[in-house]
Amino acid sequence: MTACHAEVVGRTAVRRRITRVDADSVVERPDALAVEEPLEIRVNGEPISVTMRTPGDDIDLALGFLISEGLARPADIRSATNCDDNVVDISLVGETPKQRNFYTTSSCGLCGKDSIDAVRTTTSYDVNQDRAPIDTSTLVTLPDKLRGAQRGFDRTGGLHAAGVFRGDQMLCLREDVGRHNAVDKLIGWAVQHDKLPLTGTVLQVSGRASFELVQKALMAGIPALAAVSAPTSLAAELATESGMTLVGFLRGASYNIYAGADRLSV
Amino acid sequence: MTACHAEVVGRTAVRRRITRVDADSVVERPDALAVEEPLEIRVNGEPISVTMRTPGDDIDLALGFLISEGLARPADIRSATNCDDNVVDISLVGETPKQRNFYTTSSCGLCGKDSIDAVRTTTSYDVNQDRAPIDTSTLVTLPDKLRGAQRGFDRTGGLHAAGVFRGDQMLCLREDVGRHNAVDKLIGWAVQHDKLPLTGTVLQVSGRASFELVQKALMAGIPALAAVSAPTSLAAELATESGMTLVGFLRGASYNIYAGADRLSV
Repeated sequence: MTACHAEVVGRTAVRRRITRVDADSVVERPDALAVEEPLEIRVNGEPISVTMRTPGDDIDLALGFLISEGLARPADIRSATNCDDNVVDISLVGETPKQRNFYTTSSCGLCGKDSIDAVRTTTSYDVNQDRAPIDTSTLVTLPDKLRGAQRGFDRTGGLHAAGVFRGDQMLCLREDVGRHNAVDKLIGWAVQHDKLPLTGTVLQVSGRASFELVQKALMAGIPALAAVSAPTSLAAELATESGMTLVGFLRGASYNIYAGADRLSV
Repeated sequence: MTACHAEVVGRTAVRRRITRVDADSVVERPDALAVEEPLEIRVNGEPISVTMRTPGDDIDLALGFLISEGLARPADIRSATNCDDNVVDISLVGETPKQRNFYTTSSCGLCGKDSIDAVRTTTSYDVNQDRAPIDTSTLVTLPDKLRGAQRGFDRTGGLHAAGVFRGDQMLCLREDVGRHNAVDKLIGWAVQHDKLPLTGTVLQVSGRASFELVQKALMAGIPALAAVSAPTSLAAELATESGMTLVGFLRGASYNIYAGADRLSV
């Protein structure tokens, strides 16, 4: 198993002079800010998306984006190139995909149920078949394990983190100004190391859990998502419909189970 | 002055049965989750964007999106209609806009500087000309004022908030699962009440400050942005280049000034 969380890749922070004001002092000093820069993702030379991200692991980000948005499958990927600091080109077998997201549209309106159906008919993996139990005494340690490894957050206080765990082993950690980018970088890492689907794993995220994060986890075959903060209604619905375990407000020994409680030894 | 923060519009929370686990108990109980549903924004009948948002103030959201993304100016707006629960159509004078964001693209790559230039050449307002001083004894009270009015957060713990203040008066507060949506709803409110540009105001947000939030504030002529958490590098750069005041880590009596310190009585 290749563990990757010890790598520090790319420029995650820059120094800037700021004014720090406290109740009894005003000090000018340098401060570290999380870097945000646009990344253009091209497929077969054609731009299909521009995302604001923290530089580093850009090829992973582009690959993870294509897989997690249902625009490509691992077998479709021919090569990936850094054309420029902020441009990645992915060469795919076959045509350049058109679809941009799962927020489907139709002439008679649209709703969350349509979005859920769109994800369920696109995903390559059925996490419902992945019945590996999750040890709850390990689960409650994941936020601290994630936090302990967030070097970019330590410096800037401004980066989201996502880590994928099998048991108590952290397989990979990624940080980014965008929480969806941190997850895409993880998925791209898994693509490059031929680790999809990520069976028997838990995806631990530092913030909230949206529909988009559940969708991305499903597209990578991750059977459980744990968030430090709240999930949305549609995140809980998609997790329930797909047989994914969804845990929120995971803090200390306490947490809420929104879906897939049967994997947990409660 | 029309204050709007007392209104509760739309379905912001749903009830769902969850399992709550603590160190010494496991309880099944109902819980309130922040609602997330797709909204399709159409211009002259043509779909131009789908965003995951918390229902409510959808016309404000669509109007704010068009203005803050530089796709329309207030004078271009002819009418706005709720076609369906999750579809809003905005009728504009003239052609349907094509541009989708400020993350510009070019054949020789792209960078944050290009994005900053794209915003600066598109905005209708020059916040640099707006020299109204900001009283710091008022500034430090804004996070508590915002927090005190976040009814959706009280119920769900899962909604971002944005509030626009003139002095210590909160002109408008909006909550949403997406922080950019909360800001777009505020801007749409200002459009509908003919309050653009929002001169002499402070935009207070509950989380971090990204490039996108500074951009949206600029497009509404808001001269100051204050965040409870960290700004990104590009947020600080855009604020500096545009003459906007940017404050971060505003907690209790302490804060960091990243740009535009001259408006503050430090």
